[in-house]
Amino acid sequence: MGKSFFVKHSASEITQKLVTKAVFDYNLIEDGDSILIAVSGGKDSSVLSWALSSARYSIKKDYKLLAVHISTDFCNCCSKGPLRSRLNSWDIEFEDIFVPVTGRLKAGRKMNCYWCSTQRRGELISFALKNNCNKIALGHHLDDILETYFMNITQSGILRGMPARIDYNKYPVTLIRPLAYLEEKQVIACANEQGILKAVCTCPYGLASKRRAIRSSIADFTGGNSAVKRRIFAAFENQHTEKINFF
Amino acid sequence: MGKSFFVKHSASEITQKLVTKAVFDYNLIEDGDSILIAVSGGKDSSVLSWALSSARYSIKKDYKLLAVHISTDFCNCCSKGPLRSRLNSWDIEFEDIFVPVTGRLKAGRKMNCYWCSTQRRGELISFALKNNCNKIALGHHLDDILETYFMNITQSGILRGMPARIDYNKYPVTLIRPLAYLEEKQVIACANEQGILKAVCTCPYGLASKRRAIRSSIADFTGGNSAVKRRIFAAFENQHTEKINFF
Repeated sequence: MGKSFFVKHSASEITQKLVTKAVFDYNLIEDGDSILIAVSGGKDSSVLSWALSSARYSIKKDYKLLAVHISTDFCNCCSKGPLRSRLNSWDIEFEDIFVPVTGRLKAGRKMNCYWCSTQRRGELISFALKNNCNKIALGHHLDDILETYFMNITQSGILRGMPARIDYNKYPVTLIRPLAYLEEKQVIACANEQGILKAVCTCPYGLASKRRAIRSSIADFTGGNSAVKRRIFAAFENQHTEKINFF
Repeated sequence: MGKSFFVKHSASEITQKLVTKAVFDYNLIEDGDSILIAVSGGKDSSVLSWALSSARYSIKKDYKLLAVHISTDFCNCCSKGPLRSRLNSWDIEFEDIFVPVTGRLKAGRKMNCYWCSTQRRGELISFALKNNCNKIALGHHLDDILETYFMNITQSGILRGMPARIDYNKYPVTLIRPLAYLEEKQVIACANEQGILKAVCTCPYGLASKRRAIRSSIADFTGGNSAVKRRIFAAFENQHTEKINFF
């Protein structure tokens, strides 16, 4: 019998397995890919970077990795030195770019999450194109994705997925979310095991209050049951939108 | 200023208004329709019958109503006299048909909700066709519909709507759910106001335990907020299934 019958897998091994499974299930990485990882300095994108670097042996594809951090005039108080060192130790090149999101606001407009995200998105795509990256990897995990589904349903009245892979029509860039199968608790356990600490300060807005409320509701709703969470993910990811249900 | 600025609408008026709105929004009733109402004897189908009969003045269509109750060998212990009297008092003809759902079980198979519902569905369609009814009206309200969405997502991993109107391809029959905008509490309030009591015993299985658990979760999830419930309904009903969500 193999190791798996006797040895409890470590959080790091579970992370590598679930990332590899997502990569295979959704064809996230192909030979020759040049992947830009969007790193905030937080645990999610750090675990993503570590996993893409360390799971090459199981992903079995030939790909390059580059990481970028977007600093803004909104939140740019920390040294990026530790983040650079950590990424370099995983054989990932690191760049830090600056976007004046507040400076770009039109007169009278207030700073908000939507504005900031559109500005950073644009810069991320530009940076990927300039650096010949054909994929952009984001650190959203399963709990983030479920929160977004339920935010969209309850706040906007829209069934909108947050797919593991999106091929852009406008740009020669594909978006991937290799942590899609990982729950937040698994990401945290892996970060702890790998000694990954938050490397830079994160957004002072933190979690918007509505998202925080949804997070707590989902915990009640799923009872923290991983199988239920994965079924919800599958429902949205596969978009089995059958309209017929007689009774 | 009109009445609505000074007078609180009664539960019966709210029911008539919301049924009329659903009828208009989803084109549930057209001139010349012959509508078969599936009545269990419970509050939902009774309120549905009352509303379709009493809201003719606001629905402003020319339609006929007929009600049918399906008795089974599984649950057929009560007289249908009071149900018939009540429906007749609303100018709705009533028929009671018998389906031996347990008798139709193959050897070794146990009775279950799915089997029973498929048997009753088939009989309902046959009865509608034999009686020249082009519509079948079911008494599902907003809370029933939301429960079904979340049952499908969490148990089956499928995004399946429960539309207010379904045009069957196989049969010249359209299914309608005129109570789709009404919350259960509104149906109960209307039933109480109209003195509608449960007329026959209902299924001894009652609510399946999973559906009961989902009901409680949805209450936590929406905080009982009607606007949130209606946005969830709109999300599934309109099937805005956008796959793109970058951040």
